[in-house]
Amino acid sequence: MDQNDEHISSMRQLPTIILREQWASMPVEDRVQAFMELPRADADAFLLSLNASDQSELIFALPEVERRIWVRILPPDDLADVLQTVDAHDRMQLLSSLDSPTRKEVTALLAYGEDEAGGLMNPRFARVRPDMLVDEALEYVRRQAHQVETTRYVYVLDARQVLLGVVSLRHLFVSSGRTLVKDVMKTSILTASETMSQEEIKNLFTQSALNALPIIDQDGVMKGIVTVDDIVDVVEEEATEDIQRLGGSQALEAPYLKIGLFEMIQKRAGWLVVLFLGEMLTASAMHQYEDEIARAVVLALFIPLIISSGGNSGSQASTLVVRAIALGEVRLRDWWRVFSRELVVGTALGLILGLIGLLRVAYWPSAESTFGEAYFMVGMTVGISLLGIVLWGSLCGSMLPFVLKRLKLDPATASAPFVATLVDVSGLVLYFSVARMLLTGTLL
Amino acid sequence: MDQNDEHISSMRQLPTIILREQWASMPVEDRVQAFMELPRADADAFLLSLNASDQSELIFALPEVERRIWVRILPPDDLADVLQTVDAHDRMQLLSSLDSPTRKEVTALLAYGEDEAGGLMNPRFARVRPDMLVDEALEYVRRQAHQVETTRYVYVLDARQVLLGVVSLRHLFVSSGRTLVKDVMKTSILTASETMSQEEIKNLFTQSALNALPIIDQDGVMKGIVTVDDIVDVVEEEATEDIQRLGGSQALEAPYLKIGLFEMIQKRAGWLVVLFLGEMLTASAMHQYEDEIARAVVLALFIPLIISSGGNSGSQASTLVVRAIALGEVRLRDWWRVFSRELVVGTALGLILGLIGLLRVAYWPSAESTFGEAYFMVGMTVGISLLGIVLWGSLCGSMLPFVLKRLKLDPATASAPFVATLVDVSGLVLYFSVARMLLTGTLL
Repeated sequence: MDQNDEHISSMRQLPTIILREQWASMPVEDRVQAFMELPRADADAFLLSLNASDQSELIFALPEVERRIWVRILPPDDLADVLQTVDAHDRMQLLSSLDSPTRKEVTALLAYGEDEAGGLMNPRFARVRPDMLVDEALEYVRRQAHQVETTRYVYVLDARQVLLGVVSLRHLFVSSGRTLVKDVMKTSILTASETMSQEEIKNLFTQSALNALPIIDQDGVMKGIVTVDDIVDVVEEEATEDIQRLGGSQALEAPYLKIGLFEMIQKRAGWLVVLFLGEMLTASAMHQYEDEIARAVVLALFIPLIISSGGNSGSQASTLVVRAIALGEVRLRDWWRVFSRELVVGTALGLILGLIGLLRVAYWPSAESTFGEAYFMVGMTVGISLLGIVLWGSLCGSMLPFVLKRLKLDPATASAPFVATLVDVSGLVLYFSVARMLLTGTLL
Repeated sequence: MDQNDEHISSMRQLPTIILREQWASMPVEDRVQAFMELPRADADAFLLSLNASDQSELIFALPEVERRIWVRILPPDDLADVLQTVDAHDRMQLLSSLDSPTRKEVTALLAYGEDEAGGLMNPRFARVRPDMLVDEALEYVRRQAHQVETTRYVYVLDARQVLLGVVSLRHLFVSSGRTLVKDVMKTSILTASETMSQEEIKNLFTQSALNALPIIDQDGVMKGIVTVDDIVDVVEEEATEDIQRLGGSQALEAPYLKIGLFEMIQKRAGWLVVLFLGEMLTASAMHQYEDEIARAVVLALFIPLIISSGGNSGSQASTLVVRAIALGEVRLRDWWRVFSRELVVGTALGLILGLIGLLRVAYWPSAESTFGEAYFMVGMTVGISLLGIVLWGSLCGSMLPFVLKRLKLDPATASAPFVATLVDVSGLVLYFSVARMLLTGTLL
C-alpha cells in the first residue's frame, strides 16, 4: 500500500504539470532556467504542450546553440505557427537553423492563412502503396513511425501522391500478412481541401467522429493530415471569439493580460461607440415625451426598470440562438420554429415580470403616498409595458442573429448588446404609448 | 484527370455526411429508413458520430431485432451516455439486450456523474504485463486491437491491475523485440482520478498535449482511459454552458429546439426575475431624485443613455475576464493586474464616450431650445457622468468574476447582466450627484 501511495503521488507531481501551472506568472529568465532544468524527456513534452506564442518566447530566450536543438523537436505545423508570431528577422534566423527538408515543409505551410485547413495540417503522415503486402506495409509504417504525427491511420497513395484509400493501423494489424493493402483499405474517405476554414474542419470532425482527416488539393494529391487534438484548440479559440463578440467587443487576438493596452482600447472602443451612438436615439425618443414626464414625474421612476428588462430578455434570447446556430443545432430555415417558440416563451416571461411589476407598484405598502392617487393605473402601465417589452425583446433577440447570418455576417457580432440598444429605444416608445392610453384624463 | 475528379467528388459526397446535415430536420420515421438504407460500414460510422440523445432516439425507434444488433456497435462509455437519456423501463430493456460482460461494464459506468472523469472514460484499453517481451506484448496488443478504443498507448499493469507504466505502440514498434516491456515503458505518467470533473480533465489535456489519459482509483488501479476526441465534446459543452450563463440564463441541458417549452421558461425566468428584483432598486433610487427631475425634466432625457453605457462597458469587461479565467490565462492572484489594466482602459473608454456625450448635448445645432439655457452645464453633467460610469462599469465588470471565483461560484454565472444591474443603480446615483454639484443654482 505504501509503495502504491508513493507511486501515485509521484505521478501526480509531474514536474511538467507543476511548471505549466506557474508558467504564466514567471519572468522570462526564470522560465528559461526552469525549462533547462527539466529532464530531457519531460522538456520535450513540455515544449510541445505550450501554445505557439509561449513556444516562440521560450525558444528565442534560449542560447542559440540550445535553440537549434529544440526547434527540431517541433513538428512542421507547430514550427510554422511559431514563425507566424515573430518578425521577419527572427523568422529568417530560425528558418536557417532547420535542416533543408524541414525548411521546405515549413515554408510551404507558411503560405496558408492562419485559420485555413492548410495552417492546421501536418505534412508528415504514414503512407503506403496499394500493391504492398500487409506485412510489408506494417514494416514500412514501422520505419516511418518516429517521424509521423500518428500511425493510427495509414494512407494509401499512388506514385503521384494521389490519395486512393485509408487503412487503420489496427486493421492492418488484424489482417492477414499476405493480403494486399488495396484489398483491405477503405476507399470511401472523408477528405477536406487545404483552403477550407478551420471552422468547417471543426464541423467535419464533430460530425464524423474521426480522429484524423486527410487534406487534399484539387487534383486529389494528399498534402497532410489534421488530427483531432489540433481541433481542441480550434474549438476553444472559436468559442472565445464568439464569447468576446457576444460581450460587445471585437475578438482580442491575444490573451487578456498580454494584449497591448492601446490595442485593447481600440478593440473595445469601437463597439462601445457604435452602441453609444445608437443609445443617443433614446434621448431623442425621450424628448418626444418631455411633456408627459413634466406632468407625471412618477413615470420617469420606472424607465430604467422597463428598458433593462427588455435588454435582459433580448440578450438572453440572442445568446441562446447565436450559440445554437454556432453548434449547428439551428439553421437559417428554422427561423420560423424559433419565432414561434419565442412567442410562447416571451409571453410567459413577460407575464411573470409584468405581474411582479404590477404588484410592486400597486400593492406596495405606501403606494399612494409614493406614486400618487393614480397608483393603480401607474401599476397597470408598468405591468403592461413589461409584458410588451419582454416579448418584444425575446423576439428581436432571437431574430437578429438570423438577419445577421442571412446578410453573411457573424451572428455573434455584438448581437446581445445591439439587441439591448434596439430594445431600449423601442421600449421607451412602447412605455409612453401605454402611459398615454391608460393615464390620459388622470395623470396626463 | 477525369478519373481523379470522379474520385474526389465521390469522396466529398459521402452518404453519412449528407445524412448528418439533414438529420436535425428529419422526422423520426424518415431517420430510421435513411439509416437502414446506409451500407453497413457507413451505418456503423454514422451511429458513432451522433450525440447520445440522437443515438438513443434512433436506437429506440428501430425494430427490436435491429436494436440488439446496433447497441453492440457502441463502446461502453457511449452506451452509458445513451442509457442516461432514457427512463428506467427503457434502460432495463436495453441493458437486458447486452451480453453479460458489457452489461457489467456499462452498469459500473452508470454509477459516475455525467460530468465526472468516470463518465467520460472507456474501460477498454490496451494492457500488457511488465515482464513480457516486446514481441509478446505486440502480439498481445494485436489480439486486443478489435475491442479497445485506441492502441496508440499501451498500459502496463501488475496482477492487481495497478498502473505501473505506459508505452506508446510506436515505441513498442521501434524497440527490439527481445527487450522486456518494463525496460521500455515510461514510469512518470500523468493520471487522473475517476472523480475529477470533466473541466479538470479538459485542462489536463490542454496543458499536456497528450492524446489519452489513464484514470486510476485511490489504490492506483487503472479503471479506463479518456481520449482527446471525447474532450472536443467537453470543450464545446463547457463553452456552451458559459455562453448561456453569460447571456443571463441557466445552462440549457438540451439543444434549443429540443428542450421543452416549460423547462425553457423555467431556466430563463429564474435569472430574469432576480435581475428584475435588482433593477427595482433603480426605481427606489430615482424616487430620491424626483424633485430634481420635476425641476429639470431635461435630466430625465439622458437616463437611458447613461445607464446603458455603464452596462455595456461593464458587460464587455466581465465577459473578457470571465473567458480569460476559464482559459486559465488569468488567475485569482492576478486580480490586481487586471484592476490596473481596467483603470487605464476604463478611463480611456470613459473619456471617449464622455467627450462624445458632451459634444452631443452642448454643441447640438438647436441645443439651447432643446435642452434649455443651461445646456452647456447639462452637457458637462452628461460628459462627466459618462466618464465616471464607464470607468466604474469596467472596474465592477472586471472585478465581479474574481469575487464569484473567490466565493467558489462559477464566474460565468450571470456575470454580465448582473454587472449591468449593479452599474445601473450606482450609475443613477452618480448621475444625479454630478447634476446636483454642477446644476445647483442654475437648473436645480
